[in-house]
Amino acid sequence: MTTSAARMEGALADRDRWTAEDCSIDRAVRAIGSRTSMLLMRESYYGTRRFEDFARRVGVTPAVAAARLRELVELGVLERTPYRDPGQRSRYEYALTPAGVDFLPVVMAFMHWGDRHLAEGGRPPLRADHHGCGADVRTALLCAEDHEVPLDELSFRAGA
Amino acid sequence: MTTSAARMEGALADRDRWTAEDCSIDRAVRAIGSRTSMLLMRESYYGTRRFEDFARRVGVTPAVAAARLRELVELGVLERTPYRDPGQRSRYEYALTPAGVDFLPVVMAFMHWGDRHLAEGGRPPLRADHHGCGADVRTALLCAEDHEVPLDELSFRAGA
Repeated sequence: MTTSAARMEGALADRDRWTAEDCSIDRAVRAIGSRTSMLLMRESYYGTRRFEDFARRVGVTPAVAAARLRELVELGVLERTPYRDPGQRSRYEYALTPAGVDFLPVVMAFMHWGDRHLAEGGRPPLRADHHGCGADVRTALLCAEDHEVPLDELSFRAGA
Repeated sequence: MTTSAARMEGALADRDRWTAEDCSIDRAVRAIGSRTSMLLMRESYYGTRRFEDFARRVGVTPAVAAARLRELVELGVLERTPYRDPGQRSRYEYALTPAGVDFLPVVMAFMHWGDRHLAEGGRPPLRADHHGCGADVRTALLCAEDHEVPLDELSFRAGA
C-alpha cells in the first residue's frame, strides 16, 4: 500500500470546500471515453482510413461504427473525406486531425498500463518502439523543465 | 488534415492479415474505462480516501460508488482498509496501490487533452505543475533514450 497523493494547493487544499464539477477529465471521458471510440482511435493510429475497415477491425456493426465515427468527426478528432475507387461509387474515409493526433497519449497510456497489468502470461501483444532509434516507448508525466513528475510531486491549483 | 499514422512493422504490416483481438488498450478500457471508475481514480490522486467522500465528490449514489470501488479493489488499483473514528463504528477507506499509482498517466492524459480541446472559454479549470520546480506538467510519449516520440515515429511490432 502507498499513501501518496498529489498536492492540492491554494483554494484546492480544503477538500470540503470544493468538488471537481468543472473537470477536463470528465469532459474528455464523456466525449471520447467509450470503448468503441477508443478502439476507433486506435485503428486511426494504426493507419485505418476506410469505413469498412474500421467496422471490421474494431468488431462492431456498421451502424455502431457509423454512429461513433460521426461523433468523432463532430468532436473534431477525425475528418471525413470522400474517395472513389475506379468503377465504384463514392465512399468515405476518416483521417486524424491535429486534435486526434493530440489524443495519442491517452490511448498509449491505456496500452502501457494494460501491457503491465493485464497482459495474458505477462506478454504484451504488441511492442511499441521509437522508429530509427529502436528504444521502447512509454507514457510519462513530464514538466516543462523535462523532469519526470511522480504523483507526490504533482501539484494542482485552481486555473487562472 | 494530417495523414500521419504509426508504422506497423513485420507481421503487422499487412493490415488485411490481422485484427487486434488481443489488445492491451481494449483490456484496460474494459477493466477501468468507465466514467465513474475514472473519476474515482481522479479522487484518489486528489487525496480522497473515505467511502462517503468518494461518493459525494464523484456525484454518484452510495450503491454505485460501492460497486465501482469494489471493482477497483478486485482489479488491484485500490486497497480497502478499515478505520475507526473515536466513538464511531468501523468504516473503510481506499488507498492507491502501486498499480493504481501506475494508472496516473491515463487520467492525466485525459485531463490534458480536455484542457486543450474542451475547456470552457479555453480556460483549464485546474493547473498541474511540478512541485518545487513550478513548471507545467504534460503527458508525453518518450522512448527509453528520452526522445519524445511523435505519431509518425512510433513503430508497432508483434510482441515476443
